[in-house]
Amino acid sequence: MAKLSTEPYKGVRDFYPKEQFVQQYIAEVERRACEKYGYEEYNASVLEPAELYRSKTSEEIVNEQTYTFTDRGDRAVTLRPEMTPTVARLVAHKRRELGLPLRLYSIQNFFRYERPQHGRLREFWQLNADIFGVPGVEAEVEIIALAHSILIGFGASEHDFEIRINDRSVLQTIAHTAGLDEQLFAHALHLLDRRAKMDNFEDVFARELGATTARAFLDGLAQTASNTHIERLRELLALLNVRNVVVDTSIVRGFDYYTGMVFEVFDTSEANPRSLAGGGRYDNLLSLFGEETVPVVGFALGDVTARDFLDTHNLIPPYRPATELMLGVVDTDAVAHAMKLAADLRSEDITVAINYSGKRPGDQIKQAEKLGIPFFILIGDKERDSGTYVLKNIQTGDEITLPPSRIVEHMASALG
Amino acid sequence: MAKLSTEPYKGVRDFYPKEQFVQQYIAEVERRACEKYGYEEYNASVLEPAELYRSKTSEEIVNEQTYTFTDRGDRAVTLRPEMTPTVARLVAHKRRELGLPLRLYSIQNFFRYERPQHGRLREFWQLNADIFGVPGVEAEVEIIALAHSILIGFGASEHDFEIRINDRSVLQTIAHTAGLDEQLFAHALHLLDRRAKMDNFEDVFARELGATTARAFLDGLAQTASNTHIERLRELLALLNVRNVVVDTSIVRGFDYYTGMVFEVFDTSEANPRSLAGGGRYDNLLSLFGEETVPVVGFALGDVTARDFLDTHNLIPPYRPATELMLGVVDTDAVAHAMKLAADLRSEDITVAINYSGKRPGDQIKQAEKLGIPFFILIGDKERDSGTYVLKNIQTGDEITLPPSRIVEHMASALG
Repeated sequence: MAKLSTEPYKGVRDFYPKEQFVQQYIAEVERRACEKYGYEEYNASVLEPAELYRSKTSEEIVNEQTYTFTDRGDRAVTLRPEMTPTVARLVAHKRRELGLPLRLYSIQNFFRYERPQHGRLREFWQLNADIFGVPGVEAEVEIIALAHSILIGFGASEHDFEIRINDRSVLQTIAHTAGLDEQLFAHALHLLDRRAKMDNFEDVFARELGATTARAFLDGLAQTASNTHIERLRELLALLNVRNVVVDTSIVRGFDYYTGMVFEVFDTSEANPRSLAGGGRYDNLLSLFGEETVPVVGFALGDVTARDFLDTHNLIPPYRPATELMLGVVDTDAVAHAMKLAADLRSEDITVAINYSGKRPGDQIKQAEKLGIPFFILIGDKERDSGTYVLKNIQTGDEITLPPSRIVEHMASALG
Repeated sequence: MAKLSTEPYKGVRDFYPKEQFVQQYIAEVERRACEKYGYEEYNASVLEPAELYRSKTSEEIVNEQTYTFTDRGDRAVTLRPEMTPTVARLVAHKRRELGLPLRLYSIQNFFRYERPQHGRLREFWQLNADIFGVPGVEAEVEIIALAHSILIGFGASEHDFEIRINDRSVLQTIAHTAGLDEQLFAHALHLLDRRAKMDNFEDVFARELGATTARAFLDGLAQTASNTHIERLRELLALLNVRNVVVDTSIVRGFDYYTGMVFEVFDTSEANPRSLAGGGRYDNLLSLFGEETVPVVGFALGDVTARDFLDTHNLIPPYRPATELMLGVVDTDAVAHAMKLAADLRSEDITVAINYSGKRPGDQIKQAEKLGIPFFILIGDKERDSGTYVLKNIQTGDEITLPPSRIVEHMASALG
């Protein structure tokens, strides 16, 4: 039989304990921040009916990037490429039972068929947080403040990132004033999205929209920052000490469902000049399900970009395994004694692995070291007879002889 | 445009906050137990190369139940139906770097195309825990004790469940002695697996294996409980106060990769007479990847059956949202004040949702009640002027007037 490859599927990751530790750290910071703001966790399957994405997710994603297949019962199924249609579906399904306002978050995985590259993979994990039922600027303030508080929670300072905001309804007014019809407006949004990559965007706009229209549209954009709604948004954010906010009219976001404020959070370091998170207001999505419209503001923060951000700013905490103590076993006679001691320590909330390998004590300590376990006790005849144990701190090499009743206390004070 | 359905894909579940709370509770009990035993968390993608399942997962699952499709790059991909091949792949990939013994756990989702029915869905979540590198009975003791400790952690007593053990290598010896060749042995395992459902299994065995062979095989089975290995296993389990263990030779497990001890945990209640968890020893799986063989013992516990067990024994904890306090807002003038108060309380670790709905105070309290939030404070002119707040306990109706500095303390003592 040919041997199987140990590689994962292309573009997805294996998370060994050291990588999973970072994933959990990121999720914990996000979870705690969301819950402080009153968001409750939900979840749904990665499998969704394919039709859920056909009308409002960006065409690029649906046509080129989704994993869509037919199941054995001939249903078209998609591996979710984003969470917004799902959360809208959930709220539409139980709207009256849930009531409004409603705050929901989830930290789950998503799939896009892309060429794997820096910052982009075929599977990524992402926080999504959404507030339903608040039409006013308060909801926008809250979502931006929440995104900000997560980055601060990672240990970042306001200098490390920048929040770039814009407003699609303001854009729409400007477009209307400049005389753009709906189709040209959609095209203008597309151009704006690519503006940063253009050498001479004014020429491109003039060519694509007509010189006069383009001029009127770009003049309108220049006034965006003084729009009353955006001013109020920034004022309330400043009250919450969120000050690294700039108006950037090139922020339009790829999804068709946004209707008002949109924002992205950018890493300010030159080593990682990327968008980390983004979101905005989408007030019409629930109408797809035949429901009355509900105003919503939400945002998402992906794990791949979050990890790059932490890495760039030296904010990844050092690995610490869940296991605090390894018990080494000298020979088979010591097995039952080690099992009993482990059970006693576990009942006092110590996490204990027993090394049943039968290897030499030195090799057993080496394995504890390899795994990053901070403490080690070897169990042999002497320990069984005396009922006292030599607790070794693997990092410092310090050893101390203790009765079982004092092991917990000693470890607790050493581990902080 | 036709309206979209709000139903999830067939056979999968939506987890609203109240359901997600139970999922998180189950995962937390499992996580804590695994970590006490020295297991570290890992993860991998739900997408795996299809070939990973072709040799050792049960034929029924691979041929009839996997979600397998071809990606846009013509690769055959499977949504994982179980974790064992994945964890074996991970360990084979970094065996020397990881060292042995190694303990790993994960709580992730799995997919099987089945007709949805009680206890079976197309997507389920499952704990998997595996210990690598221990050939002796200690690893089997540990995995069974861990499964036991999780059920005890759920608040169950030993009367609520039963651990049924068997040993495939003992079966193999019996089969060999009875004169069964490999093919007939595989068939005998298949018959054993279905024994409980047969009216007269002795006749069926006699017909399928030949009368003399069947007699010798069934006589051998009757001696299994007195096998030395199984006796030692039960003795060590008793030392750890794991006493609800019986030998049951009809336990064979569906997967081809098991080589030694196998076990299943059964609910003993008549209302839910089901297998909750199962596992065993599989010592040859890593050789599929061209690696030296590594002895492994592992088990899995699914969320659907766990939840049914908790439900049957009345062990599901009452829902408690993450949010402890809702601030109601009387009018727009109170918004900024509410935002500031919320920020102050959050900095003291209180979880606070602000009701920005603009509805009447009574409706705002009703929404807090609907969400299960225990405390409510209304912010209006009076509160802004006086700087004191009326903290309402929604369940008892009690109200107390407090300065902000005493809100945290009062809530902490009330929430316990």
